[in-house]
Amino acid sequence: MMQMMDSTWSSTEEVIALAAFEKAFERERNALLAEVRERARVIVELDDLWRLHDFLSARRHDIDGKYDYRDTTLIFVFAQLVKEGWLDLNDLQGIEPSKLTKISVLARM
Amino acid sequence: MMQMMDSTWSSTEEVIALAAFEKAFERERNALLAEVRERARVIVELDDLWRLHDFLSARRHDIDGKYDYRDTTLIFVFAQLVKEGWLDLNDLQGIEPSKLTKISVLARM
Repeated sequence: MMQMMDSTWSSTEEVIALAAFEKAFERERNALLAEVRERARVIVELDDLWRLHDFLSARRHDIDGKYDYRDTTLIFVFAQLVKEGWLDLNDLQGIEPSKLTKISVLARM
Repeated sequence: MMQMMDSTWSSTEEVIALAAFEKAFERERNALLAEVRERARVIVELDDLWRLHDFLSARRHDIDGKYDYRDTTLIFVFAQLVKEGWLDLNDLQGIEPSKLTKISVLARM
């Protein structure tokens, strides 16, 4: 995990960041599982099933990319998670205020 | 539909063949929908979901190929459907005995 972090994050911030990631991942995963169970329940035709397949292809691509921190920086990942509603800024309390400001600004873009 | 048929199939055989295809497709579709509903019900982890996604990718590829008659001949498609249990030879009664024999032999290969 450590090599994925920007070098300017303190070890306290790393602990907070990791916990926030895990929280966001849990929330997004649980929402996705609930949505799939609901979609699967109302499938009647093969076309409905292929729509579920397309939906899963897109969600898998999105989630695999978003929670893989190697290619990106934490600021951008957090901004995306806040924008999508999987985190709010309170989940990131303890992180340097200048970083929180960047995350907040990016999340509104 | 007609251009998909081998030229040696009579119009009576075509009617029987088309009905048999539809029957096989219905059976396979219903079995697949039931299986997906059951699998979706017991999903707990994201890995279970991605396994469902892989399963759907494979089934979609298989079904799209199998029920597209343009690239193949009816004898082979019917042999595959009999082998997989979606049709039995009784569903093909009325088709020339020599064709039924070929289907039956291929289905056991």
